[in-house]
Amino acid sequence: MRAEFINPFIVSLMNTFETMLSCEVTRGKPHLKEHNHGLYEINGVIGLSGKAIGTVVVSLSRSVALQAATQMLMTPCDELNSDVIDAVGEITNMVAGGAKAQLAEYNMSISLPNVFVGERTELHFPSDVHPITIPFETQWGPLRVDVGLAPVHEPAFAR
Amino acid sequence: MRAEFINPFIVSLMNTFETMLSCEVTRGKPHLKEHNHGLYEINGVIGLSGKAIGTVVVSLSRSVALQAATQMLMTPCDELNSDVIDAVGEITNMVAGGAKAQLAEYNMSISLPNVFVGERTELHFPSDVHPITIPFETQWGPLRVDVGLAPVHEPAFAR
Repeated sequence: MRAEFINPFIVSLMNTFETMLSCEVTRGKPHLKEHNHGLYEINGVIGLSGKAIGTVVVSLSRSVALQAATQMLMTPCDELNSDVIDAVGEITNMVAGGAKAQLAEYNMSISLPNVFVGERTELHFPSDVHPITIPFETQWGPLRVDVGLAPVHEPAFAR
Repeated sequence: MRAEFINPFIVSLMNTFETMLSCEVTRGKPHLKEHNHGLYEINGVIGLSGKAIGTVVVSLSRSVALQAATQMLMTPCDELNSDVIDAVGEITNMVAGGAKAQLAEYNMSISLPNVFVGERTELHFPSDVHPITIPFETQWGPLRVDVGLAPVHEPAFAR
């Protein structure tokens, strides 16, 4: 994956957590996604398409999801109900939207967020995509962002 | 969800299975998605965005996924390897692409397919979206398609 695609997702994740959720975030080292397992339990996913095409997955442990929803909704959240799921979807939307804005030259639009919940869920990208995993630490626990994004090749006559 | 959004996905799923996989398909009755569980084990997901925005999820049991991949790759597939996962992603891509073509007036583009694998995975749509579940029976077993799609409201000044 192009290096220029990675930083916008790091910046956007950190902005979302620090500005909107008042949660300190430390980023780990981005690396090629090596396994299909290792996700946290709660996974927000959103598709991007335009002059680049792909997906971002925001993977949160239950503890991070509950604390983030508590902060976002300004009401204590201690179970995984539809408000918490919607909050995770909205966080995913903000991460994707913020990255999209930084990649304006690719003129991407984003789809609706879906949230997959499951303790041993595997996530696969198409095998010709080489997604990047970006680990983060927060005061509420760890999270990760998986991004697979590729430029769309224009037909030769359109160049 | 608008009724006009449902039929293109039914037609596209049936075309994909009948034409490309030579597999007979019978559709069940589409209904509002009532639960977040009840998915089959292997779930292809793809985002759509444009003048309508949303997601389609093609949910297959392991048996349907293996048989579909066997047919598609013209080689026996008896375990869930990356070739089978890619085949499920490609089937999802064809279902989304075929529906998109029938909804050309919404000028949608589609993201890359991801495949989530897990036996008790829950799938959530945003709570203001009212997704539809369409069940199908095939000679290889049952499958379902979940679609949540909503028109994007233009700002008033653009009308």
